[in-house]
Amino acid sequence: MFDHLRSLLRADQLSTSAAVLRQHARGESYDQAVLPEIVIYPESTADVKRVMEFAYAQAIAVTPVAMNSSLEGHTVPLRGGISLDMTRMNRLREFCPEDLLVVVEPGISYPQLNEQLKRSGLFFPIDPGAEASIGGMVSTNASGTAAVRYGVTADYVLALELVTPKGEIIRTGSRAKKSSSGYNLTRLFCGAEGTLGVITEINLRLVGLPEAASAARVPFKDAEAATTFVSNIIQSGIPVARCELIDPASIAAVNKYLDTNYPEKMTVFLEFHGNPAGVEADAAFVEDLAAAHGALTFEASTDPDERETLWQARHKMFYATVAANPGKRNLVTDVAVPISKLPRAVSHALARCQTEGLPAYLVGHVGDGNFHLAIFFDDGELSRVERLSHDLAGHALTLGGTSTGEHGVGIRKLPLMTKEHGAALNLMRDIKRLLDPKDIMNPGKKLPT
Amino acid sequence: MFDHLRSLLRADQLSTSAAVLRQHARGESYDQAVLPEIVIYPESTADVKRVMEFAYAQAIAVTPVAMNSSLEGHTVPLRGGISLDMTRMNRLREFCPEDLLVVVEPGISYPQLNEQLKRSGLFFPIDPGAEASIGGMVSTNASGTAAVRYGVTADYVLALELVTPKGEIIRTGSRAKKSSSGYNLTRLFCGAEGTLGVITEINLRLVGLPEAASAARVPFKDAEAATTFVSNIIQSGIPVARCELIDPASIAAVNKYLDTNYPEKMTVFLEFHGNPAGVEADAAFVEDLAAAHGALTFEASTDPDERETLWQARHKMFYATVAANPGKRNLVTDVAVPISKLPRAVSHALARCQTEGLPAYLVGHVGDGNFHLAIFFDDGELSRVERLSHDLAGHALTLGGTSTGEHGVGIRKLPLMTKEHGAALNLMRDIKRLLDPKDIMNPGKKLPT
Repeated sequence: MFDHLRSLLRADQLSTSAAVLRQHARGESYDQAVLPEIVIYPESTADVKRVMEFAYAQAIAVTPVAMNSSLEGHTVPLRGGISLDMTRMNRLREFCPEDLLVVVEPGISYPQLNEQLKRSGLFFPIDPGAEASIGGMVSTNASGTAAVRYGVTADYVLALELVTPKGEIIRTGSRAKKSSSGYNLTRLFCGAEGTLGVITEINLRLVGLPEAASAARVPFKDAEAATTFVSNIIQSGIPVARCELIDPASIAAVNKYLDTNYPEKMTVFLEFHGNPAGVEADAAFVEDLAAAHGALTFEASTDPDERETLWQARHKMFYATVAANPGKRNLVTDVAVPISKLPRAVSHALARCQTEGLPAYLVGHVGDGNFHLAIFFDDGELSRVERLSHDLAGHALTLGGTSTGEHGVGIRKLPLMTKEHGAALNLMRDIKRLLDPKDIMNPGKKLPT
Repeated sequence: MFDHLRSLLRADQLSTSAAVLRQHARGESYDQAVLPEIVIYPESTADVKRVMEFAYAQAIAVTPVAMNSSLEGHTVPLRGGISLDMTRMNRLREFCPEDLLVVVEPGISYPQLNEQLKRSGLFFPIDPGAEASIGGMVSTNASGTAAVRYGVTADYVLALELVTPKGEIIRTGSRAKKSSSGYNLTRLFCGAEGTLGVITEINLRLVGLPEAASAARVPFKDAEAATTFVSNIIQSGIPVARCELIDPASIAAVNKYLDTNYPEKMTVFLEFHGNPAGVEADAAFVEDLAAAHGALTFEASTDPDERETLWQARHKMFYATVAANPGKRNLVTDVAVPISKLPRAVSHALARCQTEGLPAYLVGHVGDGNFHLAIFFDDGELSRVERLSHDLAGHALTLGGTSTGEHGVGIRKLPLMTKEHGAALNLMRDIKRLLDPKDIMNPGKKLPT
């Protein structure tokens, strides 16, 4: 079946070994496993074009994957076929510091990219936490802790090179920072989760490293007080760089894990970026605001080591919760709501987990109204926990929010799409059919059939 | 022909009076005039739906228009039909200060919106200069002087309600600040120039008014020195709020117009927003940077009146150039290039105008690599000037830029689309056909046939 493809690529670019197929059968945090028939490692845009032309002619499914850090099943090759492993396309093709621009292949990870940029004074500011590839981050429109200041991955994508499901190479966007020319195809492909084509090159905008940074940790008596405080920071126009919330259960887990004694309260973690005077003034303003909202304490520092310590409970939270629940599995929810609805969404979610008798830990990118619950459960309880997760997402939708703030739809969130998008879902399906009439491009993801 | 429509709307919502038709026959700064057959004033989403259902059934062209401040012919009803005047849909439907969100109809202008928000401490920061409607700004993805800090209109659009060419109401996006759900249809409609549907409601994100602002005026010996300085500001990570460049000819025109004596040099105009200490530190840092780049002087102030005076030459520049060229008409170019290419693009453009013997004045949103030339000419010279404008846009494309940074394509920029988008243009045409199979929605704009 793949003989023709073997004639187009080197032998070491294709694998059907059982171990390699198994390794590409499932995603990081999604149960279902389906073996691909073959794993292909393209090394250039031309390779990808060859693969897609072949796959289109033969109507073979193609599932792109790189670091496989996705949480919602994006990379499971549901219909077998080709697992297109992009990890060898991990070059930095061009770096134009004077234009604050870098051109990369999709397989490079954002820590690798920032490592290569280190001495330039520039960086790519989106920080989703995992060792994610830039291609994957573009495809899920990833964000994370710094999004409240710096935005989401798509905000940094100036231009893309793609291979369409039919095997055509197209370029979207330009190197200009803004444009009103043509339809915005770049944004259509950002967040499309590999269902509309294979990204082969990304022109990324960079930003200057901030001169100074300041961090703070602020515990509150409850979620209401903490989230109202956060909402007021955002409204004040203070360009807070990070703004995270974790709950008493998480802090308790950290205290046990690290033998620390952080107050087991709803705690807001803040970071400010700017010049030294501005950062100091921002922190002072926010300290006053915190006092006015009943903050229990306000610990802040501009020293790098002390900043690390202040944020320690946030950084270690996930590991601590895993350690606190030995033998259990976990599922991480990912809703976002308008910021004023955050207290309701958070209370509702925590109450539901309690009713279900499931240990759950809150971590919120609260400046964006986005929060996660890490819910722990035993083998055999997955479908109950997925139903609960869908209920919470449905609740977020009734509050004007979204079922996924940053992790994407993948397979898991498919049941929520009709409720979330209504009539617009038909238009999405029409666009999918337009680009991928044979439904070969990461089939079974993003849009319910 | 329009009898059925008359039965669906009130009599005062339709007009075929010669004066009204004439008023809707052409755009602000585009020559061609075509009379619509009827002007319709919808007052609700339901009205728009009725009009589109009728137009689709009868295959009648529909051209949406509101303030008609577009510069590229967007609102000319090229195929006659219906001019859909959105000015009566100018309500603020909902204001949620706690979510930094406002829900508006498309016919409200951004100064009207900001006037209504005045006492809230929040504002919509995009400032294209003209009395533009929010619907028009969304449709051209307008930006202007504050884009270097705050981004473009599309960056503020959380959700849209639209009526498709077939008369279906769809909603895109949500009220959450970020989402990874579904394809990004919101961005597809932003900048579509009314060719994919009629926008009937916009959910706009707002930002907090900055606590303090500082302004500066910095003349340089030439464009090279001025643009290198600007590029260094951007690279330094200083969040400059505005960053404009005007040329010696413009300053000379202002001096004559206002009887002032500003140095007739390439001049950078700056504004900083933030807290008082941060703004002061930013301005001091940039003053040092200016000195290192050979700035001739550096005048700065935080006082509102003095700031206004510092920026006076920038604000009055267009009126001054019109006054300096009595009896002449003008065309404003609109390219954007990667910032390192700005000196080349600017020198090339000014030299070409000189060769052609045409008075031309430079004004650049240089922090974004976007600049305009106001070119003055006599009756009968329009096609020569349009050819020149296209040459300059073509030059921007060879530098990795775009043929329109913020004004849009309309009719005028159509000849540049093949060169700018290549194979991606076919996909854009396919999307247009998908949504508008009868080609009734603002036909003849945005995409060349």
